[in-house]
Formats: sequence, structure tokens, C-alpha cells
Amino acid sequence: MWGGRFADGPSAIMREINASIPFDKALWRQDIAASKAHVAMLAAQKIVTAEDARTISEGLDQVAGEYEANGVPEDWDLEDIHMTTESRLAELIGPVAGRLHTARSRNDQVATDFKLWVRDAIDRADDGLKALQIALVTRADENAASIMPGFTHLQTAQPVTLGHHLMAYYEMTARDRDRFADARRRLALCPLGSAALAGTGFPIDRDMTAEALGFDGPTHNSLDAVSDRDFALDYLMAASQCSLHMSRLAEELIIWASQPYGFVRMPDTLSTGSSIMPQKKNPDAAELVRGHAGRIVGCVTSLMISMKGLPLAYSKDMQNDKPPVFEAAGLLDLCIAAMTGMVADSTFNTDRMREAAELGYATATDLADWLVVQADIPFREAHHITGAAVKLAETRGVALDALPLADLKAIDERIEESVFAALSVDASVAARSSYGGTAPNQVRSQVKRARKELGMEG
Amino acid sequence: MWGGRFADGPSAIMREINASIPFDKALWRQDIAASKAHVAMLAAQKIVTAEDARTISEGLDQVAGEYEANGVPEDWDLEDIHMTTESRLAELIGPVAGRLHTARSRNDQVATDFKLWVRDAIDRADDGLKALQIALVTRADENAASIMPGFTHLQTAQPVTLGHHLMAYYEMTARDRDRFADARRRLALCPLGSAALAGTGFPIDRDMTAEALGFDGPTHNSLDAVSDRDFALDYLMAASQCSLHMSRLAEELIIWASQPYGFVRMPDTLSTGSSIMPQKKNPDAAELVRGHAGRIVGCVTSLMISMKGLPLAYSKDMQNDKPPVFEAAGLLDLCIAAMTGMVADSTFNTDRMREAAELGYATATDLADWLVVQADIPFREAHHITGAAVKLAETRGVALDALPLADLKAIDERIEESVFAALSVDASVAARSSYGGTAPNQVRSQVKRARKELGMEG
Amino acid sequence: MWGGRFADGPSAIMREINASIPFDKALWRQDIAASKAHVAMLAAQKIVTAEDARTISEGLDQVAGEYEANGVPEDWDLEDIHMTTESRLAELIGPVAGRLHTARSRNDQVATDFKLWVRDAIDRADDGLKALQIALVTRADENAASIMPGFTHLQTAQPVTLGHHLMAYYEMTARDRDRFADARRRLALCPLGSAALAGTGFPIDRDMTAEALGFDGPTHNSLDAVSDRDFALDYLMAASQCSLHMSRLAEELIIWASQPYGFVRMPDTLSTGSSIMPQKKNPDAAELVRGHAGRIVGCVTSLMISMKGLPLAYSKDMQNDKPPVFEAAGLLDLCIAAMTGMVADSTFNTDRMREAAELGYATATDLADWLVVQADIPFREAHHITGAAVKLAETRGVALDALPLADLKAIDERIEESVFAALSVDASVAARSSYGGTAPNQVRSQVKRARKELGMEG
Amino acid sequence: MWGGRFADGPSAIMREINASIPFDKALWRQDIAASKAHVAMLAAQKIVTAEDARTISEGLDQVAGEYEANGVPEDWDLEDIHMTTESRLAELIGPVAGRLHTARSRNDQVATDFKLWVRDAIDRADDGLKALQIALVTRADENAASIMPGFTHLQTAQPVTLGHHLMAYYEMTARDRDRFADARRRLALCPLGSAALAGTGFPIDRDMTAEALGFDGPTHNSLDAVSDRDFALDYLMAASQCSLHMSRLAEELIIWASQPYGFVRMPDTLSTGSSIMPQKKNPDAAELVRGHAGRIVGCVTSLMISMKGLPLAYSKDMQNDKPPVFEAAGLLDLCIAAMTGMVADSTFNTDRMREAAELGYATATDLADWLVVQADIPFREAHHITGAAVKLAETRGVALDALPLADLKAIDERIEESVFAALSVDASVAARSSYGGTAPNQVRSQVKRARKELGMEG
Repeated sequence: MWGGRFADGPSAIMREINASIPFDKALWRQDIAASKAHVAMLAAQKIVTAEDARTISEGLDQVAGEYEANGVPEDWDLEDIHMTTESRLAELIGPVAGRLHTARSRNDQVATDFKLWVRDAIDRADDGLKALQIALVTRADENAASIMPGFTHLQTAQPVTLGHHLMAYYEMTARDRDRFADARRRLALCPLGSAALAGTGFPIDRDMTAEALGFDGPTHNSLDAVSDRDFALDYLMAASQCSLHMSRLAEELIIWASQPYGFVRMPDTLSTGSSIMPQKKNPDAAELVRGHAGRIVGCVTSLMISMKGLPLAYSKDMQNDKPPVFEAAGLLDLCIAAMTGMVADSTFNTDRMREAAELGYATATDLADWLVVQADIPFREAHHITGAAVKLAETRGVALDALPLADLKAIDERIEESVFAALSVDASVAARSSYGGTAPNQVRSQVKRARKELGMEG
Repeated sequence: MWGGRFADGPSAIMREINASIPFDKALWRQDIAASKAHVAMLAAQKIVTAEDARTISEGLDQVAGEYEANGVPEDWDLEDIHMTTESRLAELIGPVAGRLHTARSRNDQVATDFKLWVRDAIDRADDGLKALQIALVTRADENAASIMPGFTHLQTAQPVTLGHHLMAYYEMTARDRDRFADARRRLALCPLGSAALAGTGFPIDRDMTAEALGFDGPTHNSLDAVSDRDFALDYLMAASQCSLHMSRLAEELIIWASQPYGFVRMPDTLSTGSSIMPQKKNPDAAELVRGHAGRIVGCVTSLMISMKGLPLAYSKDMQNDKPPVFEAAGLLDLCIAAMTGMVADSTFNTDRMREAAELGYATATDLADWLVVQADIPFREAHHITGAAVKLAETRGVALDALPLADLKAIDERIEESVFAALSVDASVAARSSYGGTAPNQVRSQVKRARKELGMEG
Repeated sequence: MWGGRFADGPSAIMREINASIPFDKALWRQDIAASKAHVAMLAAQKIVTAEDARTISEGLDQVAGEYEANGVPEDWDLEDIHMTTESRLAELIGPVAGRLHTARSRNDQVATDFKLWVRDAIDRADDGLKALQIALVTRADENAASIMPGFTHLQTAQPVTLGHHLMAYYEMTARDRDRFADARRRLALCPLGSAALAGTGFPIDRDMTAEALGFDGPTHNSLDAVSDRDFALDYLMAASQCSLHMSRLAEELIIWASQPYGFVRMPDTLSTGSSIMPQKKNPDAAELVRGHAGRIVGCVTSLMISMKGLPLAYSKDMQNDKPPVFEAAGLLDLCIAAMTGMVADSTFNTDRMREAAELGYATATDLADWLVVQADIPFREAHHITGAAVKLAETRGVALDALPLADLKAIDERIEESVFAALSVDASVAARSSYGGTAPNQVRSQVKRARKELGMEG
Repeated sequence: MWGGRFADGPSAIMREINASIPFDKALWRQDIAASKAHVAMLAAQKIVTAEDARTISEGLDQVAGEYEANGVPEDWDLEDIHMTTESRLAELIGPVAGRLHTARSRNDQVATDFKLWVRDAIDRADDGLKALQIALVTRADENAASIMPGFTHLQTAQPVTLGHHLMAYYEMTARDRDRFADARRRLALCPLGSAALAGTGFPIDRDMTAEALGFDGPTHNSLDAVSDRDFALDYLMAASQCSLHMSRLAEELIIWASQPYGFVRMPDTLSTGSSIMPQKKNPDAAELVRGHAGRIVGCVTSLMISMKGLPLAYSKDMQNDKPPVFEAAGLLDLCIAAMTGMVADSTFNTDRMREAAELGYATATDLADWLVVQADIPFREAHHITGAAVKLAETRGVALDALPLADLKAIDERIEESVFAALSVDASVAARSSYGGTAPNQVRSQVKRARKELGMEG
């Protein structure tokens, strides 16, 4: 009568909507580790016998070995990784397996497993970001004095150095690493032992399990411990910001690689060519990095929405915590790695960059400044003179400092030979040597600081 | 030197970040169908020979048979479903397979395949929603006169009927179906033949392929055709709104099923019990429906972000169009089916509902109204009298209409026997018979209209 | 003791968090109109006297006149526009004002007002989009044969015409208008008369108020009528997709306006200059259009989250329906208008565009095709020859069709004079004359269709 | 010809779309402070004379005084707060005002102002959260032994104490404060002196301005300094998580305040009553807190989208950074304050809570445990016995421990008098005394720790 999918009957639907094993099997290593820590504690506290604990622990090792070798079986009737593992354990070692679940519940178990997984994801992100930073610093060092147009509004504004530009991303990724470190520090309390929601009457030692799993100590409130997914949001938020940084560099590389710019040639290994157009090298990896940022932001949005308005303690809505985290982590790892490859292996066409800076008349500001400071000309008039000089250079298709002095004097008598120091893009960047500025000496100094932070020195 | 994932080298990363076959294999049926329509047209237009077309078409059938039997192989080097199918076709029928790609490109091919997939998803959603409507209407009909508290701010406001409440969801799902119908109508133009971005010089007949694939005609602009993903957003937006409606009913069922309410007992088939607490029946399916709405909203957000600011025509970011659509569609189908089961098979405890309406003093408004209209008492005074009556009933723990007339007269002399008609919850709902109101006759009239719309009559 | 903002006491906080008048005063015209329709119906149904109805109606006109002249006063104690208006009405006409609220409540009143406001916003969007389409079609017509590089992955792919490119946006905006039309059609039922949630016992005529306010009829379910905000989401979703289209064109204009491209010069009226750099013209309007898309998407996300999991009927969370709609509508109107200005008044540098197409070797595909079709050379060899020709042209810095035949023959003997027809960008676009293709005749045909749709034809 | 809003002409549109003064006037205090720090440094570095610096500084004080007294004027032609202030300064002190802008640009100025504003918002959030924590801890202390049902899936699971439940929110808000502290620490570098994007040639002392404005030092890279909005995202992300926590407590209060629960009576000061229903007290403040979480999440989504894919350095899209931050901060401050009021001033009906725990048979687990541990009955059989006991109690409408021993023995002979210690909800919570558990002694111990952290101890 109802038609549609419902024709299969509610039980079939329930089985499908309820099963999390298709995705939470990713937690198997963490689940085994937490169970081993738990049973060791139960034995130490004499809640289970040493003998039983050894049997259970060895059984868990055997299950882990099977998962490692053959993958985790996906049986929807066993719902999740916890039931799957317990069920297999019971097959292997018999009823004693049941003692493992003493003084814990799935609620504290999944919170513990998931925290451990997120902690690993944080460490992976940090490793990846460090590699990216090394690439950035290395290329920045090579290009500390390579001139390129500095853009605002994607309009040529003032000349900067490519090294300076790349070091901007060093700063962003440094904040990313800091953010991941904060997330890691904040997930340092272990939920295990919170049981279903209220704690347990068994004489457990939560400090022992916390320590065994690398946490600083146990969580302070059992209701919070099983209801909390802040740690997952902290990870997703750090991942989102990191992905936004990647997306900005990706956008720049895509624009720089397009023919009218021609600033960069992407590595063959991270591009696709065209079977018919030899001139074409598609920056697929950069586009995917840019696009993946959208999905990672979608993931954090998804989890925020799922958590909004949930009463304590555990609600099944929270089963939706894992897919966005797993998805975002997979995408982020790839984005960081791909970006590292692009930074390390791209070929920068520094001639084209310099030419664009020159023909974009990026030093017009410097000319106006020279007129004001050196020739004591009121700014409004200086601006007018600058405009005339730019127009002349544009007409001839040359850089400002390629105009002969005579021609400049024809525009305004007061212009002197010394102006050329201001007109060259090299002079312009060298002048901007305030702390954090684009001058090569500043860039080199920041590179040095960064290399030290990264342990690349000596 | 770089460490992290990048140690595998950029090529390995590119292979992984670039491959869409892990998810776009879901398009295989659409890809085969579109290829068959294309080659039939090429033959009709004499761009390929009838002989070659037959060979290709039969080869495609053979590939489809293999996929049906064994699934689609996932070889990352073949990137996507299009290359995977072409490669297998070439293995089966040799170089003639190459002629299939004449006058098309992957850009128009994927746009066509994806539109066809989305169209099927729309049809599935509509079927599911119709089944849910039938369940709603059926239960509403049974409960056209069952009294329950009508809530605003989750505070008892006025009595309504359960049938009226359920029919509110009929209205929501009717708008959902309308929205899906709009989405379906708007994707009615076929991109095939737009080629890479500019159209083609081959004398193709786009009307023919459009018709063969069930479209109204070809798209009008080839650049737009390969850049457009509006149809995917239209689907996701309709899915999001639908999921929000499901989430509201899910929230209500969760609250109604909690012990202090006790309004509903969920079907065993869509709940989980507890191994130790016989009193407990967890509304897992409802919680998952509520939670999934968050993920579906995350999916539409994700695709909107990915599309923002993309220049024409195809950019690789657009490869991120499919995961959110596939994910949302899978979740939505399950939500609708699970909700249908909950509506059809839940047991409503109409006694508890009626009692809650009575003890929530939902007819206090009706008493005040009676005083104003029948006894000509100014509203402010009527409100004061009503307050006293409610307080008395609360003290005794009885419904308003269970107070003896004498006691009401002790509060105010002017109260008469006829007031009881206003005080009962049945009288209250019966009175609200304005069009679309909660009176049983109105509910039955709307049920009748709905049954006709659903083809359930006669 | 508590410190912080709470030191003001809960009442002050409640006053502030509860007041919606700072934003819902935007509804004043709709509120007056709905009240006038309501009171006219009450009189027609003899629920209020004709005399009272006239007094109320004239009083409402007077309030409207005050608002028009002096704005709506913001008194937080009066909470919202409905109370503000009723309170002022009572000051003006005395206690008879109280009769206006017979047989309605704030719940159906706000739903009606807001629907009316959204309907107006839809009409504004449609007007704006039509103006934008006229601009697009006009510029497309002028540039039906202007050559530019067609990009995929922002890499030069094949030559297209600027007219074709602009008409892609005609298609997008046509879908936008269609989407707004759907949203308008779907909000066609009037909530007025649904009262608080359950309907009313007064003998109202809901058809009469619905008709007076331009609706097709009354809503069918009173609970749904006061709980429903689908119409606001429909608007926001149409607005989001529209803003994404605007953002894509904005991105292109920003890139095209940057010096290395130089494809477009934005109108002075929609740019900012630099006080010191005469070469600089910042595409601020385009950047704001691109950025505003992000906020509009944020608005729809916001409302979706607010509605998720809300039980029926009215919950105060729903007060958060208006800020995102008002914000998005204000931003969208500006985006469409600014984009219309940019399309209408930008100066396209078609010489630079053509040059970029030529020097991007956009016809490499055409050369390879010629070799296969005309010279019967296997594709793999044709590709090799093409690569050699592109390399030679690159070396010389000229277009492919600027290479002398002798030099081409030196690469491969079989190349003939007739190849030049294929190598020119004009020949290339002219060839792609499949339906919806980039050939000038196709573009002109689509322009003609569009002009007819827009009523621009004589 | 174009119709729509565009009829006003592009200049009018530009003026409107470009003006940020309607919202960025909120930055005026920060703008004045940063300007004063800047000019003091210019004088110290002898870039401007001491005389000029004093004139400028006094002029800025005068402007600030005017803003304080009369508000900031909104002249769209002056675009933003920076131009508005400079323009007014020039009116007051003449051309010397121009020297203030030496060695800075609007790009570093706005980044500095906005960071200062966000830092203040962080401090406000922290103050508010501390007040909320004091309220939570105070009420938890009062209710360390008050029994309520502990829920999972909103089904009665095990008895917990209200104090334990409230302390769960202490933990959440502690993480919130930690997150805001991280955000504050990470915004500790001052952008001022980064100029337009490349730094400056003037001999500025960036350490001096950084210190004067309370920063730890200057930013390390000028391109990053003007492009970075991480600090705004860090704030929004902390605000989002905080708002999600508020929304969870709000949801609980709304459910607890509904008549079938009756667990809580909200303070009159944070509710709205009904003019006709004395039984009704709408939890408006709680609903607004829950709803506002949706808007705050919308704000962070909005800014993430705006920043995605923006090339360096400043793009006008970034003008969209402020509206979401200002909106979220206003909403968050109100949410925290309103929640503090609700926690501090709500009346908990602990009798209803205890009764719900008893009649929800929350100690069924404890009965089964007693049978296993004390009577050595296999679990499966214990479960069966428990089920029978619950059924009997349900039939009689009494708590489990209100069943006479004789009746329990009729179900199973092995049940002894000592079972009653396990059956009472008090015994049940007392038993769960593992670290972080719900036992009153655990709750009191956590309250003590919290009071110490909050400086509430004598």
C-alpha cells in the first residue's frame, strides 16, 4: 500500500538507517586500544581476574590482526564497530568476552575512540603542515628578491617579492598549526569510565586508563563526557580555516598559471594535460584544493547543525558526528599534501612576474612620493605629473624607469636623475624595509626565523 | 625531506585527489544510457556508420551487464566512470570504441549523466513522499476527532485534534512534492552535444538525443550547459526543506515518546530497546531523521560554497558536485521511508493526549471568551475570573469542565450551566471550524481533499 | 554578584532579546494592508459594525501616514510592529481599536505580513533580473562575433565569442527568474484567519481576505499556516542561486580587469580609483557582488538551522526568520543592480581578447582535427604535428595562422593552404554551429529568442 | 531602459553598495585609539613634529567626544569610519590632519581596528561566561542531591542529580572560555605599519604601536597582516560552539517547562505570559537562545564562504567580515546573559523531577545488577525478572521501591529485603561515585573545584 522504499518494511529501513559500521569501522584501532586499556585497568582493580584480562587482551590482539589483514567486516546487524569487535571477540574466546564491557557503556566507549581518532588526525595535519612550511620557506628563500606585482583587488598595486608573498602563507599555516595544537590540548581528558551517562558503581581507576591512552586525566563530569563533541568541532574548525588558506593559494596559482599571467608552470605530476592541446596544462590539483575547502566548510556546518539543541545526554543524532569528520580529514590531508607538491615543484616564471610589475606601473606610488619628498611638490600636483608619466610609458609599452630622463623632464622640469632609484621595482621593494615589509632583507630575516622554528637550521 | 603524506610523491597524491571513480561510479546506468542515445544519433546523422553504432551499442550493453553482475571496477588510473566505461568498451570491441566520443566531451557527458541521476532521485523522493502522505492521511482520518494539546512555545495553548496536527505535515509534504516537481521541470534541457564548452562542428541532432533521454529539448548555450549545476542545487534545496519538515515531526515524536508525555509508542521495528531496561524504547529512527536533516543542510551548503565565484566554463572544483548530492539523496530516501514507518505504525495514546489537554487547561481561552460574549463581562475582568477557575482546577487536579457549577458560581455569579459546552475540549475543537481550523469536520474535509489528490478515493 | 551584562538584571535583558521592532518595522506596509483587509472582512461578516470598521480603517491610514512621514517608532516595550501599530491605533481612535484583533492572533498576522513582504521582494528581484537580462542581451548582440579565449580550468581551451559567453549568463538568470516565479506561486495561500494555531469560532470569510491581499485562497491547515516558513526559505534559496551566478560573473570581471588580462575596463561609476596610482581601477562593485554571495548563502543556512527540529506550532525561535531574509534581500537587490551596471557600461577590450585567444593557441584542436579529417593522418601523429606547430608559433610569439605555409610544410609535408581556414579563431568559432554552440549565427539566433522573451522585439 | 533599481544609475548603486559606514562605525573607539598610538609613534620617530602630533591627538580626542555625545554621522560619501574620522579631523584642525595617514593605509588600519574590537568582544564573552558559571555552580551546589531522571534519547535511563546535570554545563562553558582565551592569544600581533600591503619606507617603530595597543608585538608579514581575518573566524568559531552549548540547555529548559514535564518554572522576568491563559508561561528567552545559535552558526558560515579563494592581499569582499562578527557578538552576549538569568532565577520543581525518575523506572538497571551480583542470577534471567517487576509497578502507578517485598518475592523467591537499597533513586545515584559520576559526593567535589577556579572560595 505505501509503495516506495517503505515496501521493504520498517525493519529493513531501520537496519539501514541505524547501522554505522559502514563508516565507524575507521575507528577499529582506537577501539581495540581503548578496550585493552580498559581491561588492564579492570584487572589492576581486581574487577576481573588477571587470567580473564589476559584472555581478553590476547583476543583483542587477534581481532586486530584479522582487521589488519582482511579489513573490518560490515554486518549491519552488528550495527557498529564496538558490537562488531565484541561479537568477534566472543566467537574467539567465549563468554569471558562479556566481562570486557563491565563498568563501561557504548556511550563512553565511542567518545573515547573518537577522541583518539581525532587526536591522530590532528597529528597528521600538523605533520603535513610542517612539510608544507618547509616547502614554503625553501621557495621563499630562493625568491627573497624576485620581483612580482603585489595585488590589491587583483589590480597591480606595488611591487613585492615572491619570497614575501610565499612567507605570508608561512604565517597562515603557523596559525593553523597553533590552532591544531590548541584543539589537541583541549581534548586531553579521557571519557572512559563515564559509563552510560552517570558514572559507575564499580571501583574503577579512571586515571589509569586515561594515562594508558595518552590523556592528561579523566573528564570531570560523566554527563558531559558522553554528550560532548566539542573536540570534533575544534578539529573541523581548525581544518576549515586551514582549508581556506589552502584555497587562497590555490586561487592564486590557478590565476598565475593562466596564459595571460604565465607566472607559474605547475608540476606535471599535479596537473592534467590535454590529449590534443599541447599548450594546455590544467591545474586540477589546485582546483580540487580550492573546491575541497567548500566541502570541509560544509562538514563543520553539518556537525554544528546536528549538535544544536540536543538535550543531554547521548542522542542518536550524534551518530552523525563521524561522517563529516572522516570526510573533512581525508580531504584536508590530501589538500595539504597536494599544496606541498605544488609549492615545492612549481616553476615560477620570475621574468614574467617582474615584467608584469613593471608594465603594471607598480612604482607609480614611488614616483609620486619622490616628487613630494625630493622635489617638494604638493601632492595633488605630483599625482598629476605621475599620471602623465604613466600614460607616456603605457603608450610606449615600457616600464616607468625605461623612460629617458629627457622625456620625464619634458613632463616636469624638476625631475632629476635620482628619480630612477625610486622608479625601479628593485628600489621600490628594497625601500619597504619596515618590520614585516617586502624588502629582501626583511624577507630573509623572516625566512631565518621560520627556519629556526622549523628546526631547519644548523 | 618534506615528510608527511607528501613522502609518497606528488604523483601518488595526484592520483588520489584526482580520482572520482570511487563515487561517480554511481552514474554508470546514466552513462551507458547517454552513450547509447549519443551513438544512435551519430548513426542517424551518418557521423558514424550503422555498423559501428551497432557494435558500440552492443558493447555498451555488455559493459552494463558486467557492472550489473560484478559492480564497477575502481581503478584510479581511469579516473572516472566515463574513462572506466570507455576503456572497458575498447577492450571488448577494439578501436571502434573511439568513435563513440565523436562530437562530445567529458564536460557535456558528465552534465548529462548527472542530470539524469538527479532526475531519478527526484522521482524517488516523490514516490517516498507520496507513501508518507498516504500514511499521514490515513492516521489523520482515524484521529480526526482525537483531542490533544495544541502547543505554542511547547506550552499547552488550545486543544487541537491529532488528525489536524498530522494534516499539517500533509501540507508541508505537499509543498515538498511541488518543489521537487519544479526542480524536475527546470532540469528538462539536455546538455549533450555542448561538447567541451563551445559546441561542435559535427552535424549533430541534439533534439534527437534530448528526446531519447526524456528531456524536453537541448540546452540553449553550450558554455552554460557545461558550467551549470543549478539542477543539483535545486534538488538539494528541495531535499533540505523536506528534511527540515521530517526533523520537526521527528522532534515531536521524540518528545511525545518520552515518559512524562507518553503520547506515542513507536513501532518496535523502528526503535531500539535496552538490554536491561524494559521500560525504555529509544526512538533511534526519529533521532536519526532529525540528525540527518543537519547533514543534508550541510550538503547544500557545501555545494553552494563550491560553486561560488567559479569562472566559466568547467573547473575541476565542480567534481565536488556529486558527493553532497549522493550523500543527501541517500539520507533523504531513508528519512522519508523511516518517517513513513513511524507515522503508519506508531501507537498514539489518545487518552494521555486528551488528559494532557484537559490538565493543561487548554480551554482557558474558551472560558474567557464565554464570559465576554455570553455574560457581557469586560475582558480584563473575564481574565481575572478565568485565572481563579484555573487555579481552583489545578488545586484539585481536575479538568476545568470537571468543576461543579456551584464552585464556578462561587467565583462569579454570572456563570451559567451553558458554560460547560465551552469548557470541554471537545466543544473547544468543534467550535474552531473556520476554513483550515481544527474542528473534526474541517479535518475530515481536508482529509477528503487530500485523499482525492492522492488518488485514494473510489 | 553575577557581573557581566547580567548586572542589568534579567528584565532589561528580556526587553532587549525579545524586541523585534528594530527589524520587523520593515513590515509596516504589509501589516497595515493585512489589517485593513481583515477589518473589511469582519464588517462584511458582521463581526464588527460597519461604523467601527470605518473608524479602524481610517485610523490605520492615519498610522500609515505617520510612518511614511516620520518612520516607525522603536519602543522595545511594544516588542514588534504589530503591537506598535495597535498601540498607536488605540491612541488615535480609542478602545474600538481592540476590535481589530478579533478572530486573528499575532501568529497568523505575522505569517501573512511576512508572506506579503517576501512576495514584494520576489517581484523586485524579478524586475532587477529582467533589467540585467536586457543588458546582457544587448551587449551579447554587439559582441556576437567578438572573439575571446574560451576557458576551462582558467586555461585557454577553444575560442568562443564574447556574445556567447554573455548569453550563458542570460540562461542562468532565466533559471533564476523561473525559480523566483516558482517561489511566488508556492506562497499563494493566505494564512490570515488561522488565528493562534487552531482556527477560530468566528464566522470569518477567509476567501475574502485572501483575495483582497492578492492570494489565490486561504491556507488549508491552521497549524501549518502559523508554523510554516517555507516561503522564506524558497525566497532565500532562489536568492542564493542567483547570487552564485552573480558571483561567477563578478569573478570573471575581476580577473578580466586585472592588468595581465586587460579584457575589460569597468565603468568609473562602479569602481574606485586610487589617489596615487593612475593605472589602478579597483573593481570594488564586482568584489562586493562576489562577497555578498557568501553572506546570502549564510542567510539561507541560518534560517535552515533555525527551523530544524522545531515542534509545532509557533516557537519564538521563528522570530529569527526575518533578519536573514531582510539582509539577503537588501544584498541581492544591490548585487543585481550593480551587475546590471557593470554589464551595461563596461568597456570590453575585444582586441586584447582576440589576441589572448590567438596567443593561447586556442585553435590547436582545430589544427589536429584538420590533419585527421583532411589529411587522413592518424590522431596520435596529428597530435605530434600540432605540438610542433604550437611550439614554433610560441617561439615566434605569433598566432598559429600567422605561420607561413612553408614553415608548416617543413613540419609536415601534407599540410595545405586550406589549413588556414581551420587555424583562424574566426573560422574556429564559425564552425561550432551546433545548436547552442558558439558560432556567431547561433549566438544571434539565441539573442533573438531572448529578445522575444524579454519583449524587446519591435 | 533597464528599469528596476538600476534606474537610479550606477553611481547611486555604487554609493550604496560601497558604503560600510552604516556598520563599521561600531569601530570608532578602536579607530581613534589606533590613530593616537600611530601618531605618538610618528612623533617619537620624528616622522611628524611633536607639535603636529599633539594637534592631531587632541583633534582625535575632540572627534571622539563628538561621537560619544552625538553618535557617528553616517555620510555614505565618506564610505567608512576611517574616512569619516579623518574628514572630521581635517575640518577641526586643518591640513595637518593629513599627516596622520603617513606610513599607514586603510588596509592595516582596518585590520588593527577590527582586531581590537574582536579582542573586546572576547573579553565580554569571557565576563559573561564567568557570570553564567557562577550561576551554574551555585544552583548545582544547592541541588547536589536533588534527583532527576537522567535521559538518553530523551528516554529515562538512570537517575542523576540535578547538580550533576548543571555541572555538565560548567564543563562546556569552561571549554568555551578556554577557546576564547586561545582566540585572544592568537590575535596578539599588531598589523599597524604593514601599510597597503608591502610595508613602508618610513622609519617606523612597530613595536611601539603594538605595545601601546596592548599587543605582544607586530605581525611578521605585511601581506598576511592585511589579508588575514583568522582572528574574526576564531572568535566566530568560539562563539558558535558556545551558542551550541547554550542551545542545548535552552532546549532542555523548554522541554522541562512544558506541562507534561513541569520540572522548571522560568523566571517571570525571562518569560512572556498570555493575556488570556493564566496557566501559560512561554519560555521566550530560552527559545530565542536556541534560535540565536542558528544565526551565529550562519555568521561563521558566511565569513568562511567570503574568505574562500580570495587572492592576496586585500580584496573588497573582505568588507563583509564585519557584519557577521557584529551580529554574532550582539546575539551571543544576549544569549549568555539571558541564560545566566534563567539558570540563576528558575524554580526547579525537584519533587516532579524525583517523581519522574521513580515513575520512569530509572533504577531498573540497578535491580538487574542486584540480581546478578547479590543473588547470582544469570543476566538473561535477571532481565526477565526486572521486566516483570517494572510491569507490576507500572500497573500500580508506583515506584519500584514502593512495591512490597512480598510482591517482589512472588515474582522471584530470591529477592531479599536488601534489594530496596538498590531500588531507590537515592541509593542509585549514591552508588555511582566513580570520578566524574553523578553521586552527590562527586558533584560536591566538582563544585568545590569549580568554585576554586572561579575564585568563589573564601
